[in-house]
Amino acid sequence: MITKEQILHALSHVEDPDLKKDLVTLHMIQHIEIFPNKIKFDVVLTTPACPMKAHIEHACRNAIALFVDKNIEVEINMTSKVTSVDSNQLSGIRNIILVSSGKGGVGKSTVAANLALALADKGAKTGLLDADIYGPSLPIMFGLEGAKPQSTVAADGKTKILPIEKFGLKLLSIGFFTDPNQPIPWRGPMATSAIKQLFNDSDWGELDYLIVDMPPGTGDIHITVSQSYPISGAVIVTTPQHVALADAIKGMAMYQMEGINVPILGIVENMSYFTPAELPDNKYYIFGKDGGKHLAEKNNVPFLGEIPLVKSVADAGDNGFPILLDADDAVAQYFLDIAGRVAQEVSILANR
Amino acid sequence: MITKEQILHALSHVEDPDLKKDLVTLHMIQHIEIFPNKIKFDVVLTTPACPMKAHIEHACRNAIALFVDKNIEVEINMTSKVTSVDSNQLSGIRNIILVSSGKGGVGKSTVAANLALALADKGAKTGLLDADIYGPSLPIMFGLEGAKPQSTVAADGKTKILPIEKFGLKLLSIGFFTDPNQPIPWRGPMATSAIKQLFNDSDWGELDYLIVDMPPGTGDIHITVSQSYPISGAVIVTTPQHVALADAIKGMAMYQMEGINVPILGIVENMSYFTPAELPDNKYYIFGKDGGKHLAEKNNVPFLGEIPLVKSVADAGDNGFPILLDADDAVAQYFLDIAGRVAQEVSILANR
Repeated sequence: MITKEQILHALSHVEDPDLKKDLVTLHMIQHIEIFPNKIKFDVVLTTPACPMKAHIEHACRNAIALFVDKNIEVEINMTSKVTSVDSNQLSGIRNIILVSSGKGGVGKSTVAANLALALADKGAKTGLLDADIYGPSLPIMFGLEGAKPQSTVAADGKTKILPIEKFGLKLLSIGFFTDPNQPIPWRGPMATSAIKQLFNDSDWGELDYLIVDMPPGTGDIHITVSQSYPISGAVIVTTPQHVALADAIKGMAMYQMEGINVPILGIVENMSYFTPAELPDNKYYIFGKDGGKHLAEKNNVPFLGEIPLVKSVADAGDNGFPILLDADDAVAQYFLDIAGRVAQEVSILANR
Repeated sequence: MITKEQILHALSHVEDPDLKKDLVTLHMIQHIEIFPNKIKFDVVLTTPACPMKAHIEHACRNAIALFVDKNIEVEINMTSKVTSVDSNQLSGIRNIILVSSGKGGVGKSTVAANLALALADKGAKTGLLDADIYGPSLPIMFGLEGAKPQSTVAADGKTKILPIEKFGLKLLSIGFFTDPNQPIPWRGPMATSAIKQLFNDSDWGELDYLIVDMPPGTGDIHITVSQSYPISGAVIVTTPQHVALADAIKGMAMYQMEGINVPILGIVENMSYFTPAELPDNKYYIFGKDGGKHLAEKNNVPFLGEIPLVKSVADAGDNGFPILLDADDAVAQYFLDIAGRVAQEVSILANR
């Protein structure tokens, strides 16, 4: 009869390639069950969006075959429990991820929305907070113009804002509370107090990831959010253009300043190239080539991926149905890959 | 012998098509000289960038031929004296024009730089102030990274910052005073005080136009600049994308608020379409079609023109040599036309 110890010994040879430790040390092997001709166990990863999932399952099967019994039936339940980078977390929210850009108009909101949808698609409980107080685009991107969140009495007895649920996400935007045709010429302190409400006075419930679409630049909102909440890390979005890269460098430097100390999860390069339908093999590097990739290398931060300039992405955002929901669109896969890499980086930081 | 009165009577039939008054009433006819076989006079327009210049000259010749003598030689000196929208002007600066956008990344800085260059190209004394405190791009766009303005003792005995002169413009950017690799995570009041220095403590000298590249959005800087200085008007830059238009609407509404009251000179649509070199007849409306034009019609403000999405424009900005300086580039003409229309709108407001 196979023993639990044999199984654990075998699986202690399987390393999580990101966390650089074996699955047993990481307490990832749980609920071992042993039957006469079959063994069964859970592998509890640190994120459902782990891009190494198939690789790890395969390695577990190999280890059992090699160290225990190559004829035994092995049933593996690949599951996950998202770990938190900061133990001092906002009640119920495991990881807050800021999506940021030095320069506006580089596609930050598009990346934030599709990143959130991709994480939810992979099974993570995900929220999206649109903190771009001067130009909230979540209402348009999710077809929620004119929507008004309800309030609710939360577990702590306080009245809280209830995020709107759509496409599997919990959503809040400052745009839900303002007239879309009126500007918000708020001075800094008013803006930061509005953002704090969206974080503190809202009933987000349990979330693996809260994606925050930050305003562009390096202003009041960035200082307030970074200093008031435990942030797992920031994703920096840029185009390959020199002027955008220059601002991205500043954005990264801000997060790395003393007193702010937000880890950089990596860089996403958006609008990398344009491919006309009539010339599918042509890539037009309208804004330059590989600028985001070089920036990542130079600053020794992960390059999370590039996204081509595609009309369907812009249209999808304008039409309230983000591109990730269109399984036929080739660009959706770019966002799914990036989401996997973001989740991976968060897991690495959480288990460091 | 022809009399001065005959000439003025003839020219009183020529109307400035923008100002809707005749040239004599507008005091535009000056320095009349009468010779035996020739007459000579100046037409003093309200801007050297007047797109109606040739049209007005032609109308003057016709009027002299019709009402005075069709055989006399006519020498017309087309000149200009830029009028000011607000008599309460900043010392020496006739018109302050804000280039603004609700959303970042729509090409606001590109429009501001090329607009300033186009006005200077037409003979106007022009300055460019980069007030985009969170992402100044003037130093890169003008090849002035690392440049440091000198100080000077101005006419009033005070020490002032001396704008850098390049390509015929006077230039100042908050970027000249900061480390390009360091962020400026300034709270609102610090940012507004920095901007006030660039306006008040700088020796701009005599300027027909000071173009101000504003930060995107509707924040502290906008309130401060609009309330502290006499602004001739604002040019709103947008892409045709729905999410950009939504922010442009807010930007316009802000300028029209009570206590701010900045006239909207018009809307520039940037990144209107992409044309690959291999398919010169194809226009790819990546971000949608005519969004800026419809926005202008709906809000009853002038549509100043569209600019295609062209790699050379982005490259030029990255290389420190704005596209307007490249006479061979077809896109330069788009900016020259837009500059003419902006100058026209300012003249109309100044002579209302």
